[in-house]
Amino acid sequence: MPATDEPVRVDVGLGDRAYDILIGGGLLARAGAEIAARMPGVRAAVVTDDNVAAIHLPAFEASLAAAGIATTPVVLPAGERTKSFEHLERVVDAVLGARLERRDVVVALGGGVVGDLTGFAAGIVRRGMRFVQVPTSLLAQVDSSVGGKTGINTGHGKNLVGLFHQPGLVLADTDVLDTLPLREFRAGYAEVAKYGLIDRPDFFAWLEANWRDVFAGGAARTHAIAESCRSKAAIVARDEFETGDRALLNLGHTFGHALESAVAYDGARLVHGEGVAIGMVLAHRFSARLNQCSPDDAARVEAHLKAVGLPTRMGDIPGTLPDAARLLAYIAQDKKVSRGALTFILTHGVGRSFIAKDVPASEVLSFIEENHPG
Amino acid sequence: MPATDEPVRVDVGLGDRAYDILIGGGLLARAGAEIAARMPGVRAAVVTDDNVAAIHLPAFEASLAAAGIATTPVVLPAGERTKSFEHLERVVDAVLGARLERRDVVVALGGGVVGDLTGFAAGIVRRGMRFVQVPTSLLAQVDSSVGGKTGINTGHGKNLVGLFHQPGLVLADTDVLDTLPLREFRAGYAEVAKYGLIDRPDFFAWLEANWRDVFAGGAARTHAIAESCRSKAAIVARDEFETGDRALLNLGHTFGHALESAVAYDGARLVHGEGVAIGMVLAHRFSARLNQCSPDDAARVEAHLKAVGLPTRMGDIPGTLPDAARLLAYIAQDKKVSRGALTFILTHGVGRSFIAKDVPASEVLSFIEENHPG
Repeated sequence: MPATDEPVRVDVGLGDRAYDILIGGGLLARAGAEIAARMPGVRAAVVTDDNVAAIHLPAFEASLAAAGIATTPVVLPAGERTKSFEHLERVVDAVLGARLERRDVVVALGGGVVGDLTGFAAGIVRRGMRFVQVPTSLLAQVDSSVGGKTGINTGHGKNLVGLFHQPGLVLADTDVLDTLPLREFRAGYAEVAKYGLIDRPDFFAWLEANWRDVFAGGAARTHAIAESCRSKAAIVARDEFETGDRALLNLGHTFGHALESAVAYDGARLVHGEGVAIGMVLAHRFSARLNQCSPDDAARVEAHLKAVGLPTRMGDIPGTLPDAARLLAYIAQDKKVSRGALTFILTHGVGRSFIAKDVPASEVLSFIEENHPG
Repeated sequence: MPATDEPVRVDVGLGDRAYDILIGGGLLARAGAEIAARMPGVRAAVVTDDNVAAIHLPAFEASLAAAGIATTPVVLPAGERTKSFEHLERVVDAVLGARLERRDVVVALGGGVVGDLTGFAAGIVRRGMRFVQVPTSLLAQVDSSVGGKTGINTGHGKNLVGLFHQPGLVLADTDVLDTLPLREFRAGYAEVAKYGLIDRPDFFAWLEANWRDVFAGGAARTHAIAESCRSKAAIVARDEFETGDRALLNLGHTFGHALESAVAYDGARLVHGEGVAIGMVLAHRFSARLNQCSPDDAARVEAHLKAVGLPTRMGDIPGTLPDAARLLAYIAQDKKVSRGALTFILTHGVGRSFIAKDVPASEVLSFIEENHPG
């Protein structure tokens, strides 16, 4: 039964592009009222995937209809492969076909794939339409729905094409997470832990003590999501276009993206949050190897992620991986490359991450070789 | 022989996204030096079309090579149909395949089609790369290369998909215009005249007296292009994202785009600038019909555009046009629609245009019927 309490509100302070994130139970049923209150008179395209549509679309459309918002649904195949030019064109075409105008709204109802693709489409139809995120996965609630990054994948890598397009509102219904498979919830949890590891050692310690309650639901879950959104919103407000600090959010992602590329985005072997979990452990161990961080801190991070049930080593990925040189090549193609030097997020310990801009490729290669399971 | 004089410089005042437009003879040969001076150490992708490549690409690449800039050429088919998702994906893929980084540069060498498509691609690869415009048509030099609008066409209409992405530099070589077919030069001239009609009656009067010299080349041509760029830059600086005054630049474009749609972008029947010429005459005549403008001013505008050799009536378009109701439907699908009301740029006379937001569709329909040749 959805909670009826007032949701927690997190403000994303971006001047004239500031917006609210609402977090709590029962928000899907209140979505129409929340959108209508902020955007009177709009019509909406609701982009979702077939998995989410089967569970949530009828109730969501009913909520919007009750608030007087006419909707056009756009249902895409579930899965990372949907983040493609082909589906971008399909969404753009559907929004134009619905004859929505610039001030109407495009809604993303789903996880990160739906949110990233839909935000990109909303950003380019009529050179920018209003956009609302209704994230239905933990990963999307704490990460991809906040901050305005949108994008698709290409054969050259993940998220190499896209733009910055801020939503006008984010509605994170914590009840819908109960319909997620445990593996997917866990993967999202990796990004929650990341905020503690970036710069909030107190939050990481709280998670070590309370993670079981976060998985169970209720107040601890809402607290963990709200704290994650606050962390991300603060970093984004400092550096919207990633010219500085925002890169800290990539902690664990350089290794993680390379591993996702290495398995060709095969979610049966590795989903994004799992790649980030392994990547964060590698980032701490690599930092220890470079004498930046105590090996005890690296062990502490690994112990927590392992306790939660996340993979922490390359050897935890089923099947064989490409060799170390090939993994390094995937890292070099990652977009966080500047003039050939490798940029990594390293750390001095739990909650003490920093941006390292000139990491020698030879050090990275040696480290991958030492840690390669094959 | 290219002139060796210093080019005229126009500043586009957009704060931290301010940039220079250089206008003059011989700029293609100086392109490498101008780019290298502003963006030291970059590599470049040069996007062009097969027509322009045959005439200008070797010299352009040589200029960049002489300045130490490594280039990857991307040659597309010439023509409006290239402004498509298919070619957007091709350019994006080529830029990623060349392993260009965020601080490297994507160069558009060509007319409006190449510029609009390339700017869009530059805006979405790695969520925004540097971008240089080298417009080789009069239309592109005075209009599409200035102001940061980028985009492609879809089955739903022209330029309905795109984004705002400002170039870092625009190089307008006035000598290359001598290689244009006269019909294309004329079409670009319609946009030059537009700046006079928007808010500079003095410039329109100067054009009435000096248009033959503009067509001939030399100082009058450079002056006309520079004044056009100054006009557009001033309007863009006031209203970068078209929330107000920038819409004045659409004078003649609402009718013009509808006519382009009506001939399915068939350039043999109507090119963009010709649509704008007819559209501007229609906008003045429609304003006169609504008692906003003297019929004498409408006649003066038509007389000048006709003297230059531009079409001024729907009946000047070869072949048959769809009926008035269908033309109205094309206008309604145009992106300058807000909540169902039709927005037009109307005028109180030469150089006295204004934005009219609630033009009744019935008035538009009657006016089209009265002017329909069929």
